[in-house]
Amino acid sequence: MGLVVVGAAGRMGRTLIRAIEAADGARLVAAVERPGSPFIGQDAGELAGAGNLGVAITDDPLKAFANADGVLDFTTPAASVEFAGYAAQARIAHIVGTTGCSEEDDAKIQAAARHATIVKSGNMSLGVTLLSVLVEQAAQALAASDFDIEILEMHHRHKVDAPSGTALLLGDAVARGRKINLAEQSVRVRDGHTGPREEGTIGFATLRGGSVIGDHSVILASAGERIVLSHHAEDRELFAHGAVKAALWAHGKKPGLYSMRDVLGL
Amino acid sequence: MGLVVVGAAGRMGRTLIRAIEAADGARLVAAVERPGSPFIGQDAGELAGAGNLGVAITDDPLKAFANADGVLDFTTPAASVEFAGYAAQARIAHIVGTTGCSEEDDAKIQAAARHATIVKSGNMSLGVTLLSVLVEQAAQALAASDFDIEILEMHHRHKVDAPSGTALLLGDAVARGRKINLAEQSVRVRDGHTGPREEGTIGFATLRGGSVIGDHSVILASAGERIVLSHHAEDRELFAHGAVKAALWAHGKKPGLYSMRDVLGL
Amino acid sequence: MGLVVVGAAGRMGRTLIRAIEAADGARLVAAVERPGSPFIGQDAGELAGAGNLGVAITDDPLKAFANADGVLDFTTPAASVEFAGYAAQARIAHIVGTTGCSEEDDAKIQAAARHATIVKSGNMSLGVTLLSVLVEQAAQALAASDFDIEILEMHHRHKVDAPSGTALLLGDAVARGRKINLAEQSVRVRDGHTGPREEGTIGFATLRGGSVIGDHSVILASAGERIVLSHHAEDRELFAHGAVKAALWAHGKKPGLYSMRDVLGL
Amino acid sequence: MGLVVVGAAGRMGRTLIRAIEAADGARLVAAVERPGSPFIGQDAGELAGAGNLGVAITDDPLKAFANADGVLDFTTPAASVEFAGYAAQARIAHIVGTTGCSEEDDAKIQAAARHATIVKSGNMSLGVTLLSVLVEQAAQALAASDFDIEILEMHHRHKVDAPSGTALLLGDAVARGRKINLAEQSVRVRDGHTGPREEGTIGFATLRGGSVIGDHSVILASAGERIVLSHHAEDRELFAHGAVKAALWAHGKKPGLYSMRDVLGL
Repeated sequence: MGLVVVGAAGRMGRTLIRAIEAADGARLVAAVERPGSPFIGQDAGELAGAGNLGVAITDDPLKAFANADGVLDFTTPAASVEFAGYAAQARIAHIVGTTGCSEEDDAKIQAAARHATIVKSGNMSLGVTLLSVLVEQAAQALAASDFDIEILEMHHRHKVDAPSGTALLLGDAVARGRKINLAEQSVRVRDGHTGPREEGTIGFATLRGGSVIGDHSVILASAGERIVLSHHAEDRELFAHGAVKAALWAHGKKPGLYSMRDVLGL
Repeated sequence: MGLVVVGAAGRMGRTLIRAIEAADGARLVAAVERPGSPFIGQDAGELAGAGNLGVAITDDPLKAFANADGVLDFTTPAASVEFAGYAAQARIAHIVGTTGCSEEDDAKIQAAARHATIVKSGNMSLGVTLLSVLVEQAAQALAASDFDIEILEMHHRHKVDAPSGTALLLGDAVARGRKINLAEQSVRVRDGHTGPREEGTIGFATLRGGSVIGDHSVILASAGERIVLSHHAEDRELFAHGAVKAALWAHGKKPGLYSMRDVLGL
Repeated sequence: MGLVVVGAAGRMGRTLIRAIEAADGARLVAAVERPGSPFIGQDAGELAGAGNLGVAITDDPLKAFANADGVLDFTTPAASVEFAGYAAQARIAHIVGTTGCSEEDDAKIQAAARHATIVKSGNMSLGVTLLSVLVEQAAQALAASDFDIEILEMHHRHKVDAPSGTALLLGDAVARGRKINLAEQSVRVRDGHTGPREEGTIGFATLRGGSVIGDHSVILASAGERIVLSHHAEDRELFAHGAVKAALWAHGKKPGLYSMRDVLGL
Repeated sequence: MGLVVVGAAGRMGRTLIRAIEAADGARLVAAVERPGSPFIGQDAGELAGAGNLGVAITDDPLKAFANADGVLDFTTPAASVEFAGYAAQARIAHIVGTTGCSEEDDAKIQAAARHATIVKSGNMSLGVTLLSVLVEQAAQALAASDFDIEILEMHHRHKVDAPSGTALLLGDAVARGRKINLAEQSVRVRDGHTGPREEGTIGFATLRGGSVIGDHSVILASAGERIVLSHHAEDRELFAHGAVKAALWAHGKKPGLYSMRDVLGL
């Protein structure tokens, strides 16, 4: 399967290039950066520390997509919406790990999925995908009148948004399990006189510091007991390997919008 | 529902008596201690700090069971086997929270379940029961070649056995999920030169100290990520309330050996 | 040592009464509630589940303080300021576990300490007091350019303010260690686009749920490693026993404002 | 400062080479492997992924040490004893991160420290070194009659010994704080009928799985509260950077046996 990496010179782009090279059944056929990038023309493999791959970085995504079977994309919401359109034109697979998309962005990606096979997830790891399944079940089994649910995340000092895409993904799992609307029931900050906790809400708490790749915990607390369901990412390559796995799974699937649960059969 | 508490003067017995008094639909009809106990003849309610209930502690379980609908039993393996026989004779419900039973003990309890409605579990809490369901699923979904599974528990300084009944219950859930034999795959101690971890094994680790009521974690660790599924008991009454709930559920059910999963419909 | 409990009919008041009865060298001589409380006239011991102590609850603190050696006070900022004045008049010890005091409140309590021996702390436990010493040292040893510091707390669903008094006490320890001003460097909420973490700040995060008595963690995170210093309270009696210990320590000490570090010699 | 890496072709050896290249004030002057190693003659920098450094791997430590100011050594007890002797002959600094040394090994290294400046530690990170200071203080402040102390560690599936060198280092800190003998008070395994916890002992528990670089917790548990002091290593380079820092510190110091506490001034 011939794959394109967009945002190829970034930290995640380079990790994706190495993951493709390490995978059976996939190879890098193009690497895209934005026009004006100082990396245009450089060999993508050398930049990624994977040796010369004979793939020069280009600023022309349309041409790159035309000769590929799929594209791996951990960029920005605006860029991902654009790439989804190109993927639909080229009728290839589009694997989207970008976070922070608005409802409008998501609607455009959904529209592109009429012609592209899109897999989109706030977290591409097997562990978080399984955890979201377990969280949904727990939230369904434990009555909101008995169990309060809180979501805690910690990431490195460079992360610019809160809560993380994965925390929101786990919040979605809680909301599905409880058949509630996440946005309406979220308590995203607490400070000063908050009053007692309101039944049925989902609280978020955010820690930032050091080089933490991503720690998430869903806490279900009642009178007398607590269940804590956690995930610790130790290596960023996890997400790259998940993206390559998603691409291999999507190859030949009919167009549509899929999640990592579909990829992993969970 | 009229209930008997056996081992009525012990710490868990007293907690059970208070839980029965707090529950709707249940009342204490007898309280049993071993012959020679200094508490024989005392009022069970006063001993438990629940006020005078007009129920004197007796050493005659047969007579106690004859006038009851169910019995709550957190005693010792030998006593529980004996009580299961009496429950079968009286054709009543027998709720067994006793831990440390041998295979032979379990076979005898199984035999008694032809005539008694027995609910037996290493942990009567809703939280641990749900956790065991999630653990079984996770163990099934994650290949032993990728994910190592470890079980950690901490209890107070007075606990005399290791690992805890709940840790073994969670180990059973792993073994069911992986379709392996727990006893054959358990690594119960590590010290000195152990060599590298063997694939497919389940490791146990035990902490003891202070007044910890019961903390359990199941850790699923692969290259690059970890899932941790934990339970923290904050209050011993949790287990007593679970036992009363099990009794109310068992009332009128046909004879057989049930678990807390049956009681909670998980 | 003869002790008064103020707020005697509340949950913490009752716990204090039981702690006094359990302690060597201390006895309850008076119990105070606000005028109009339905508990006025009742026996304080019976209310607390400690048996009849022959101490009727009164609404006259002045008279109660006149015949006592010390007062235990986990009430509200306004009440504690008033009680500090009465303690100064009676020249007795005043143990203050009240949280949420303003700077103005603290100034008044400081003034009262010219004549009363006041011990005031956001947390009366040995564990948290020791932890605050360790946190101060760690904050001093680890450069702000290398290590980011975050403070996480979880409490039960009934708690009405955030962050907890203990979280702030630990924040103070960090600030002392780093020789910075806590209020100026605190990041108390994070939501949406926050930008990268600012060097030298102290982040707070709050969880609420179930019956958690009080869990606190100070996280010191750098590139490649994390130190986490935590405290878990399992039993509210901890704080009551600490308050009684503080009273016994304060007995006969000259007037002044002391902390639990002084009491425990840490 | 000119440094030699012994065990240069191993995982830790390669990490050390990269750490030296990244450091100010240090450079690689020789790289040693055991006779017969297939890597003899290869460029050490290329092997380590640090580019060609013009340093061919040799099997002659004596010659390598003769032209160097210090040696970084994460090998085996027998090898480290031998290297300590050579370092004494060459009167250079010897940084020893090797674990698992017997008392006899330690005595030989002590003897070599009459002529060599040796820094030896079970863990070269700033975080663990600071943690050991905090643990010693906590153990000293909290009476053994009140607080039970347990040490928990988790490492990756390839680790062959238990408990880890760092767990033992933390155990030593507890023993120093309590003025007891670690070996006499250690409880290294628990299984089956253990009886209640014995006062004053130090319990160890070991977890193995996945790719965990090194997690350690010291738990101090009493009736009603727990203090937990933890360290999480996220990156193996931490230990290499610590070793280089130790070498730079040791340069010019008079002969003797030092620890990371000396290096870091803690």
